[in-house]
Amino acid sequence: MSFKTDIEIAREAKKKPIQEIGTKLGIPTEHLLPYGHDKAKVSQEFIRSLDGKQDGKLILVTAINPTPAGEGKTTTTVGLGDGLNRIGKKAVICIREASLGPNFGMKGGAAGGGMAQVVPMEEMNLHFTGDFHAITSAHNLLSAMIDNHIYWGNTLGIDERRVVWRRVMDMNDRALRDIVVSLGGVSNGFPRQTGFDITVASEVMAILCLSNDLEDLQKRLGDIVVAYTRDKTPIYCRDIKADGAMTVLLKDAMQPNLVQTLENNPAFVHGGPFANIAHGCNSVIATKTALKLGEYVVTEAGFGADLGAEKFFDIKCRKAGLKPAAAVIVATVRAMKMNGGVAKADLGAENVEAVKKGCPNLGRHIANVKSFGVPVVVAINHFYSDTDAEVAAVKEYVAAQGAEAILCKHWAQGSAGIEDLANAVVKLAESGASNFAPLYPDEMPLFQKIETIAKRIYHADEVLADKSIRDQLKAWEAAGYGHLPICMAKTQYSFSTDPNLRGAPTGHSVPVREVRLSAGAGFIVAICGEIMTMPGLPKVPSAEVIRLNDEGHVEGLF
Amino acid sequence: MSFKTDIEIAREAKKKPIQEIGTKLGIPTEHLLPYGHDKAKVSQEFIRSLDGKQDGKLILVTAINPTPAGEGKTTTTVGLGDGLNRIGKKAVICIREASLGPNFGMKGGAAGGGMAQVVPMEEMNLHFTGDFHAITSAHNLLSAMIDNHIYWGNTLGIDERRVVWRRVMDMNDRALRDIVVSLGGVSNGFPRQTGFDITVASEVMAILCLSNDLEDLQKRLGDIVVAYTRDKTPIYCRDIKADGAMTVLLKDAMQPNLVQTLENNPAFVHGGPFANIAHGCNSVIATKTALKLGEYVVTEAGFGADLGAEKFFDIKCRKAGLKPAAAVIVATVRAMKMNGGVAKADLGAENVEAVKKGCPNLGRHIANVKSFGVPVVVAINHFYSDTDAEVAAVKEYVAAQGAEAILCKHWAQGSAGIEDLANAVVKLAESGASNFAPLYPDEMPLFQKIETIAKRIYHADEVLADKSIRDQLKAWEAAGYGHLPICMAKTQYSFSTDPNLRGAPTGHSVPVREVRLSAGAGFIVAICGEIMTMPGLPKVPSAEVIRLNDEGHVEGLF
Repeated sequence: MSFKTDIEIAREAKKKPIQEIGTKLGIPTEHLLPYGHDKAKVSQEFIRSLDGKQDGKLILVTAINPTPAGEGKTTTTVGLGDGLNRIGKKAVICIREASLGPNFGMKGGAAGGGMAQVVPMEEMNLHFTGDFHAITSAHNLLSAMIDNHIYWGNTLGIDERRVVWRRVMDMNDRALRDIVVSLGGVSNGFPRQTGFDITVASEVMAILCLSNDLEDLQKRLGDIVVAYTRDKTPIYCRDIKADGAMTVLLKDAMQPNLVQTLENNPAFVHGGPFANIAHGCNSVIATKTALKLGEYVVTEAGFGADLGAEKFFDIKCRKAGLKPAAAVIVATVRAMKMNGGVAKADLGAENVEAVKKGCPNLGRHIANVKSFGVPVVVAINHFYSDTDAEVAAVKEYVAAQGAEAILCKHWAQGSAGIEDLANAVVKLAESGASNFAPLYPDEMPLFQKIETIAKRIYHADEVLADKSIRDQLKAWEAAGYGHLPICMAKTQYSFSTDPNLRGAPTGHSVPVREVRLSAGAGFIVAICGEIMTMPGLPKVPSAEVIRLNDEGHVEGLF
Repeated sequence: MSFKTDIEIAREAKKKPIQEIGTKLGIPTEHLLPYGHDKAKVSQEFIRSLDGKQDGKLILVTAINPTPAGEGKTTTTVGLGDGLNRIGKKAVICIREASLGPNFGMKGGAAGGGMAQVVPMEEMNLHFTGDFHAITSAHNLLSAMIDNHIYWGNTLGIDERRVVWRRVMDMNDRALRDIVVSLGGVSNGFPRQTGFDITVASEVMAILCLSNDLEDLQKRLGDIVVAYTRDKTPIYCRDIKADGAMTVLLKDAMQPNLVQTLENNPAFVHGGPFANIAHGCNSVIATKTALKLGEYVVTEAGFGADLGAEKFFDIKCRKAGLKPAAAVIVATVRAMKMNGGVAKADLGAENVEAVKKGCPNLGRHIANVKSFGVPVVVAINHFYSDTDAEVAAVKEYVAAQGAEAILCKHWAQGSAGIEDLANAVVKLAESGASNFAPLYPDEMPLFQKIETIAKRIYHADEVLADKSIRDQLKAWEAAGYGHLPICMAKTQYSFSTDPNLRGAPTGHSVPVREVRLSAGAGFIVAICGEIMTMPGLPKVPSAEVIRLNDEGHVEGLF
């Protein structure tokens, strides 16, 4: 069999001028700020004018725990958006922007795949509309102003050992993880140890994605805790007086980016916070704008449902007042087989028993999502080697869990291959079955929130944490941060904190290694295991083969 | 007297859609890639289609040595462009892009002033079309790949002490000038000392501004010397295999940005290399494109004519094969007075003697520019407090030097105030008097090139340089770099290397402290005195007051 690559398909796309896509949604041309002919930002003025309009229905696409076999969550999000449009619903897709840096490490990129893609793919994987660069600038302006404050006399009394605000770069650069700055003598400041994270890990990214408007953005930026004094009093971004200038740097980045699918349906691609130390969802402003413009909004959350859907519900929906109408859990026969113990090299052979053995991972995600009061349908993202018996095994298992699994062929066929799922989603959403509520109330103590997630979502027996961590949580409660939700940072490959523990483990412990306050974003990060906030490049980075070919196309990026 | 501020004027501009400005130049809409409604990039395809068309006439705007009184070089460049259009010539303006970082230090920004401005001003002083961010990314990708190469085994044998390629950020951040990276253990690499420069100081910026097309860009990027082995063999960017991916990151940044003046005339704003360690001119590709599209192209060079015009002629024009038809030297009565010894606080009072005393600074610039074979006219950029007697003194002095000085009121009146200069420029340019030749031939030894500039342009008696510096220059000659021009890095405030030595000093020495090879950009930098490649923020940075006001306008940036 021979397939076209995603980028070949993307280049053959018959794109419409972005103004036409905007018109479909009722966005007047003067309120679409174009970036080239196929990308645009929606003006703040237009977004404000939508106030009071009725919202469409919000559909979350989430997945089983990722395996090396691939699940196709974004592909299914895009496919479902096209599918809903195909069956006559005005649907808008909301997904995240790609980070530039990692594209130069492993071959990566893409926004969806096969016939279910968002375009222009090259631009979306390079600078796109500059949002991430703006976030980098805003973040690093604050960093520079902190060191500048210390340099000029440190009237706020910042303890140089307790500056918690690092710098960021949208690049995989391990050399910057741990550095000493301000060397070279008096005119360069006071030497101290710090480092760089990748831009998507910036709290500014999380803030941008959770803010309702520019005013809310500036307030949250001001709330960032950047350092502590010797007596551990927090110093805020507001004290450094950086919040106004950061807002100026972010004013365009706050506006959602409109692009289109291969089938010329509208997609907002906006924001891209880390799915571990942040919440891993596209921006609230894009989702809310899309809800005002479409009957249906299809969005996704990072990683599997244990991390992505939980944070989508408990952080994004809770804080933004969103009420999802239904959720789609994406699974593949191949991933079920891997969960059932089959090695990647053996995935090509039929193995119904392994499929059955792997299904409990899916089953637990179904139960978990339902526990938020959101009705569920499973999308089996079809791969050409799947056999009928394997597909039937998944369907049967899902039916036994009180849900439906639907075979989807959007990768090969576009919207024509996903009509059944679209119809099922509409039926669920219009049934009024959704009765969404977050997992825990705001007023629950912080440590108990962590326990609730670990026990009810991960099915762990206990949460392990040193006294210093419990004390820190209590100190934050005393300081008025007790109402914040928890942002769990753990491996995406397992319900547990052991990436090799596939399936649906029970009886495990969740050790909390560290907790961090993201006071601007509005959550407390509980770090369980090693979390890398600045990736490195592999031995042969894909950058070595990325180049422009003779037609001016980018090669090696995909 | 009460004046509107530049930003107030800019906000009241009656901007035309950028497509209309493009149409004036014959650029079809499909070849204009819009960024919002008032900025656009010109497609590579369109630029290639211009091959073989006849060139317009190139006019350089340069100035006396800058003083705190201000000269208004960009204002005059913009005004002259409007003036030429007013008298019926199809004129295009070519100026540099602004660096983001410094705007958050001192109040800054603006592109021109008064009624002679380029708009949209806010965007041009923020992210604009993202060119500088792309340069930052391309530069830092190479940095990451160098450390990554060392990390994975260093097969090229890079001496970690001799990595000359630093990192960049478009931010005034003194803490990053001198840093130690790769701390934190085995997985973060080999600790070594390095630092960050501001993005405009990147050799990538200089390369982008001197490249003819994407192919030339990639070749030059490959030529960058990034490090040396223990036996001092150079390691090139090409050896690291970063040149292809860097070109991909820069493909849009290479396309000139089209904006408009307050009078709706076309302006290309593209590139912005440092005027000390680089050549300080806008991009070759913008200038060459403008020459194909306009009868006249008005451009400027950084700092005073001793640095800016010399580099424009000896680096940009030499390498790009440009033949300037005439040059305008901008002077002000106030700056003449400061050169004549008057303090800034006393500039308001008439002082004809001081004007006369300061004129020799202007006189030497006139003679210098003429020595390149380019005819000169002087623009007296009018300030409301200038008296008739003071203006007459300047005119008289200039006439005695065999040139004409013309009073220009474009700041207050726009093109109506600069018709006389426009007519004089046309007369000079159409006289065919220009007989441009660079100051020295390619084949002159490198040290002799430095001496030639120092003696003939700065009127110094001698160049002082340690044996190690002379040996280094000889080593580069032996390595095949002897044909490169020199890029002088010295104070802009004086012909000498002493910033306090105003007027037209003679008998001084030019000490060369360091020489640097910019093999990709294609010049050798001779550093005379302290050159700062990463500025710091002042005690009260303007970032503290920069904010969005209730109308969504940026306050505090200008």
